[in-house]
Amino acid sequence: MTISMYQASVPRLVNLLGNLSGILDKAQAHVDQGQADLATLMNYRLFPDMFPFSKQVQIACDKARSVVARLAGMEVPYYEDDETTLAELKVRIARSVAFIGSIPPERIDGTEDKDIVLPVAGQETHYKGMQLLLGHSMPNVYFHATTAYNMLRQNGVPIGKRDFLGKP
Amino acid sequence: MTISMYQASVPRLVNLLGNLSGILDKAQAHVDQGQADLATLMNYRLFPDMFPFSKQVQIACDKARSVVARLAGMEVPYYEDDETTLAELKVRIARSVAFIGSIPPERIDGTEDKDIVLPVAGQETHYKGMQLLLGHSMPNVYFHATTAYNMLRQNGVPIGKRDFLGKP
Repeated sequence: MTISMYQASVPRLVNLLGNLSGILDKAQAHVDQGQADLATLMNYRLFPDMFPFSKQVQIACDKARSVVARLAGMEVPYYEDDETTLAELKVRIARSVAFIGSIPPERIDGTEDKDIVLPVAGQETHYKGMQLLLGHSMPNVYFHATTAYNMLRQNGVPIGKRDFLGKP
Repeated sequence: MTISMYQASVPRLVNLLGNLSGILDKAQAHVDQGQADLATLMNYRLFPDMFPFSKQVQIACDKARSVVARLAGMEVPYYEDDETTLAELKVRIARSVAFIGSIPPERIDGTEDKDIVLPVAGQETHYKGMQLLLGHSMPNVYFHATTAYNMLRQNGVPIGKRDFLGKP
């Protein structure tokens, strides 16, 4: 027995993005209770030259859609980066989850060695399917989702690691 | 073709921790150049009730050793949480990488369905091997490594996502 490419991607990404959506619910409640300002949260940065919160969520969604689409040989659905509210970010997450969940296992299984070319920092970068998934895409999605979490945490949103991990 | 439990764990964790060690080098250079205070960095928190930077690195290492040891049916090597410098944290990372890298693939492969019981928040939690690896341990390690990265980033250490991702 081994792990299929599908098992290592779709359910993991769906879980991670679902947990992120739950974290956004807690951020929304924090805003609704007058504990934080919505625009401040959306534009919050940990350092001046770092992407703001909204962009962290956008990239987490985009990297997740991108990897499953590329493995499955489908076009990556493009979404405008125009969300200004947590509710809109939740819609982006939901749309991403719906797309990711719609891909049947047989489109993704067996793509371990598939050649995939990706623009990384403006350069064509060549990957094999497994290397793209485990070495580039999953770390990227975790990176941006954790950074979004940390930004909310720093703003006092009452969240903990359990919200991030959810149910394994 | 599929992914083996070894491929999804050991090389990924070794890569992630190696990248974290490189990030600590950049933090050390920042300190050496008088741009940051060592003790301030080591004890830095994003929020008062959150673990400090040093603990984030410690947990990233511990979760990484823990999952491969448990999958392999070995005792988890315990390290004291007594590091007060970046150099000492780098030693913890190096020891963890050496342990993780020392486990032969055949000890980890085939553990997808292995029953593993873990204390989570004081409660015995039952996992299957693959679920533990993909749903608990990898997210945990990425979570703490990214949080350590974000803390350094907020303190002006000149690092970027490429330092975090390294070579896939």
